[in-house]
Amino acid sequence: MKVEVMKNILGENDKIADDNRKLFKDKKVFVINLMGSPGSGKTSLLELTIAKLKDEIKIAVIEGDLFTAKDAERIERHNVPVIQINTAGGCHLDAAMVRRAAESLNLDELNLIIVENVGNLVCPAEFDVGENVKAVVLSITEGDDKPLKYPLIFKESAVTILNKIDILPFTNFNLESAHEDLTTLHPGIKIIETSCTNGKGLDDWCNWIKNSIC
Amino acid sequence: MKVEVMKNILGENDKIADDNRKLFKDKKVFVINLMGSPGSGKTSLLELTIAKLKDEIKIAVIEGDLFTAKDAERIERHNVPVIQINTAGGCHLDAAMVRRAAESLNLDELNLIIVENVGNLVCPAEFDVGENVKAVVLSITEGDDKPLKYPLIFKESAVTILNKIDILPFTNFNLESAHEDLTTLHPGIKIIETSCTNGKGLDDWCNWIKNSIC
Repeated sequence: MKVEVMKNILGENDKIADDNRKLFKDKKVFVINLMGSPGSGKTSLLELTIAKLKDEIKIAVIEGDLFTAKDAERIERHNVPVIQINTAGGCHLDAAMVRRAAESLNLDELNLIIVENVGNLVCPAEFDVGENVKAVVLSITEGDDKPLKYPLIFKESAVTILNKIDILPFTNFNLESAHEDLTTLHPGIKIIETSCTNGKGLDDWCNWIKNSIC
Repeated sequence: MKVEVMKNILGENDKIADDNRKLFKDKKVFVINLMGSPGSGKTSLLELTIAKLKDEIKIAVIEGDLFTAKDAERIERHNVPVIQINTAGGCHLDAAMVRRAAESLNLDELNLIIVENVGNLVCPAEFDVGENVKAVVLSITEGDDKPLKYPLIFKESAVTILNKIDILPFTNFNLESAHEDLTTLHPGIKIIETSCTNGKGLDDWCNWIKNSIC
């Protein structure tokens, strides 16, 4: 019974996600679904990404949070369109929420939408929102055991961003083991080590975005 | 319709949680539901808590993870009973899972069970598992904005453990603002600053546990 209900919800979501994907394709807008734990650094990464790319690429952001517009306020300062979705306690964004947000954007004037999902390594991985690619941010302060403990999100993501790499010396994170686990789980996954403090890896990440759009 | 289904699931869960609570009370076992983001340091805190308390208090651990028995293996080295629950992708523990795990423990020989929930700041807060108290671990690397962004889990928890306090100088975490937000959300909440690296605050946390059991 519980399974049936879940199947119906996911089936309905997948239909809306496919519609979203068609709409984005028609409008030539590339969509990244950015996921990760609370505090992994998704919003900081977004802020720096916008600063680096906004002269070349027309970007908008859809911000997912349970409550507050704190993240949207941070993005707004960079003068790009941003829509805040509050899930009112819900643990992930779904395709219908992203559709409603997309309808408030002028898609004809955009090349890229980055959807920042709710901070959560579990639920967002299960819901297609109509994106072209999923990307996951893992802060090295979270520990190198996370890929094997939360495998779905790393299997679903085209890219893993290993963030806060500048504080690696103050942690016991084993980079080699994390790379091994990630490539075992998801052969061919792109891994980018970044720091939003010293800027390491941000050019790699921005180049990956530019190449993906073209 | 979706709401009705959720109500039924929660109603059923609450009944089992109440039964669990009665069982634990009969057996004089105190139960802590320990929650927090992936990588906030729940398992490290547990390992040090067991090392400090196990000569005075008979402790068992119920470990919740999507997959793997990595955390249970870490706990097992401390020679206390440990039961691993794998949710197979599920984002939280529920009361029935904890009931089945408790049935594998000899409750007559225990004073304390610590349930380490799935790493997630959202879903675990919604499900009573029959605990006496909830506690949430927030790593200071996650940022001081998390209490207002994920309010339910901080409202539900009797204690917030601000962990990894030793790396505070390498972050932009504002301690004062975190304390303010936590006490605004949940007046009277106990806040303990800890480091599993240098041991700061662990005596406070262990004393809080001892006083709660008595």
